[in-house]
Amino acid sequence: MKYYEDMPLGVSNESEESYTFSAQEIKAFAHKWDPMPFHTDEELAAGTPIGALFASSIHTVAVGVKLSHSFMDDEVAAVAGLGWDDVRFFKPVFAGDVVRIKSEVTERRESKSKPDRGIITTRISVINQDSETVAEYKITTLVLKNPGGS
Amino acid sequence: MKYYEDMPLGVSNESEESYTFSAQEIKAFAHKWDPMPFHTDEELAAGTPIGALFASSIHTVAVGVKLSHSFMDDEVAAVAGLGWDDVRFFKPVFAGDVVRIKSEVTERRESKSKPDRGIITTRISVINQDSETVAEYKITTLVLKNPGGS
Repeated sequence: MKYYEDMPLGVSNESEESYTFSAQEIKAFAHKWDPMPFHTDEELAAGTPIGALFASSIHTVAVGVKLSHSFMDDEVAAVAGLGWDDVRFFKPVFAGDVVRIKSEVTERRESKSKPDRGIITTRISVINQDSETVAEYKITTLVLKNPGGS
Repeated sequence: MKYYEDMPLGVSNESEESYTFSAQEIKAFAHKWDPMPFHTDEELAAGTPIGALFASSIHTVAVGVKLSHSFMDDEVAAVAGLGWDDVRFFKPVFAGDVVRIKSEVTERRESKSKPDRGIITTRISVINQDSETVAEYKITTLVLKNPGGS
């Protein structure tokens, strides 16, 4: 188990796993969660300012979360997600794009109210096959401290 | 079509539609996008500090996005999502919870670089059956101006 003490500042990881956005999954995800025409219909998307089918923002963040699990050779002692900050979408993600993530712990502090927990903020960058950052966000998680001490 | 001009500051909407989190969908969503044991396995979840199966953060935001479409009696002339800010998860969302959203335009400005567009920030609150806000976030969207003028 990976505890608060095991997540130092500034260590950067890059996912070995990648995720390929297929047109089919872009449309299926959007149909269920974010049915904008430019996420569900190639022809309609071709007539918009972006000019082609692209993935819903929430799909891109879900992929970031999914890929962050590929780091977890050892399960993180997370209690709950507290929030996300500065979630930015820099470039559209098109069908066929292949993304990886980069992850870095940018802030960490002990919980004031619960001495057995700490709070970890990680910056996640979602990067496409051309090394362009398509999205970025900071995710803050409540993590248990090692009950055996550090 | 609903343009930038049609989205004034401060107008608050509440979704008529609601969404019920079933245990099955909490687990299926998490299995695909955020496979933490406390989102995928009731028994394991019972042994964690939260004490019961609860939904992934990304599932809760996806539901917020989904319900925001129920406002769209008239399709919004959105070009793309630019970002989300101050995404906060205040309470776990458990199986059986029924949520609605409240939406309010909190900021709006014209694009400096593209005179045919404006930028709209909307605060979305996800509210459960006990009127508790379980999550809140601000979403910023690039929206076309009315090509016919305001």
